[in-house]
Amino acid sequence: MSVRYQFEKMVIVGVGLIGGSLARVVRHKRIAANVVGVTKSRESIEKALKLGVIDAGTNSLGEALPGADLVVLATPVKTLERQLGEVATLTSEDCTVTDVGSVKSNLVEAVATGFPSMLKRFVPGHPIAGKESSGVEASTADLFAGKNVIITPTDQSSFHHIERITRLWESVGAQVLSMSPADHDRVFAWTSHLPHAVAFALVKAMASHPESDTMFDLAAGGFYDFTRISSSDPVMWRDVSLANKDALLEAISSYKETLSELEQLISSGDEKGIEQYFQQARDARNMGLEHKNGNV
Amino acid sequence: MSVRYQFEKMVIVGVGLIGGSLARVVRHKRIAANVVGVTKSRESIEKALKLGVIDAGTNSLGEALPGADLVVLATPVKTLERQLGEVATLTSEDCTVTDVGSVKSNLVEAVATGFPSMLKRFVPGHPIAGKESSGVEASTADLFAGKNVIITPTDQSSFHHIERITRLWESVGAQVLSMSPADHDRVFAWTSHLPHAVAFALVKAMASHPESDTMFDLAAGGFYDFTRISSSDPVMWRDVSLANKDALLEAISSYKETLSELEQLISSGDEKGIEQYFQQARDARNMGLEHKNGNV
Repeated sequence: MSVRYQFEKMVIVGVGLIGGSLARVVRHKRIAANVVGVTKSRESIEKALKLGVIDAGTNSLGEALPGADLVVLATPVKTLERQLGEVATLTSEDCTVTDVGSVKSNLVEAVATGFPSMLKRFVPGHPIAGKESSGVEASTADLFAGKNVIITPTDQSSFHHIERITRLWESVGAQVLSMSPADHDRVFAWTSHLPHAVAFALVKAMASHPESDTMFDLAAGGFYDFTRISSSDPVMWRDVSLANKDALLEAISSYKETLSELEQLISSGDEKGIEQYFQQARDARNMGLEHKNGNV
Repeated sequence: MSVRYQFEKMVIVGVGLIGGSLARVVRHKRIAANVVGVTKSRESIEKALKLGVIDAGTNSLGEALPGADLVVLATPVKTLERQLGEVATLTSEDCTVTDVGSVKSNLVEAVATGFPSMLKRFVPGHPIAGKESSGVEASTADLFAGKNVIITPTDQSSFHHIERITRLWESVGAQVLSMSPADHDRVFAWTSHLPHAVAFALVKAMASHPESDTMFDLAAGGFYDFTRISSSDPVMWRDVSLANKDALLEAISSYKETLSELEQLISSGDEKGIEQYFQQARDARNMGLEHKNGNV
């Protein structure tokens, strides 16, 4: 009877937007026989149960983990690192472990250092999906449909466990791409972490200006649209910035150099140079968008 | 009979989104008895006439200007500077002259240098209104309703002409604020020109990375939203950057310093410092938005 399920017992640690959406679609598509959610508080378990997101819930990893054949870690990066010990010791040798975080190298290193025996069954993942709103209330079963999920297997991840995670994500409608943890972190330093740093810095700099009140008042909608990501959660972005420290610092440094080039061009009144600079940026974005949309 | 009109003959030079929208509402509200549009080509005159945006049109300033009691310059900054001579010589002493450009000091300087006798009837303006699309097709009679229009009279602008421009914008539903040209340019260097420079530089830097193809492909929608303004017109932004060179360079320099502070915090792993930095940015944006929305 259970042959139809890819997993018998899936434990999702952290039932927010991503964890909750995965739980929903896994139940909906009958990918796992039993979906157990682990959250911090009893209230959030009640909420997830009431919303029909999970089959069962607990706030204890020790209660949830035994018997699991799939563990998905969907907690913030720092919490996640603290949970690795219990996951490594309370799950069996057959249990596949993955996560959904946006930084990979530091996590692989934490596992390699602290729990090397788990490496063969650990297949880190990063679904490129999200929305403005967060929390289990915002979770939907179709969040991953048509989206990319990047997996970053280590040298030691076994083929069997890589296959299981690949099939999991493909079953929920996502396209799975495989990269090294370092390559992944470099790409996201540029496409996500740097833009956040840039936006935080822009608003922080303007807020420090003596005329900042007038500026925030007179700024058009375009300014508030552009800086929307600077209203992101400071604690989460502090942790992401530090987790991906090296790649992010490299991206910031390279970005600053490119901005200094523009400064030079404006300073010297180089009309042709400025126009080319802007044109190159515009072309790159437009081509990227076209190629991306063509691919989806 | 003509008492009801604020102006007998309004000439709008450049009938795009802004010029076209102003022409529409001026006709609709019977603010001017006669609205004449000046555009580069015969085709765009036909289009504006067909859309009912203007009463009459021509591609010749020499034909349009005589007899005007209001001239609104709504052409790109460089074109506008070239048109000042004809406007100064072909309009009478009573004719009020304004513009709708996003940089003011350079224009005031150009008038002060080249056509000082026009200073008393020249009242520069900047409506803070726009939308994604451009061109006369996108123009609407309600574009300025509830929006801010900043006027930057010079020391020599006469009270009479300032009053006429103020009343014009108030009649189309806008709120008029007065600032010095330098104050205006500093505010918009920060709230508009710097964000564009920052976005152009971000995309240009990423495009220069050896792995840029993968990056543009894997970038999420958030990246493309954030960098949308880097797809703006390179020629227009080249001209704005140079027209507001000094204020923009000052803003870039201050922004780079603030970004370097973040770099330092990340580099030294200063958790508390990073969190505070992000929190300050977030608070400033949220408060700005709240205050702005409360004011509107």
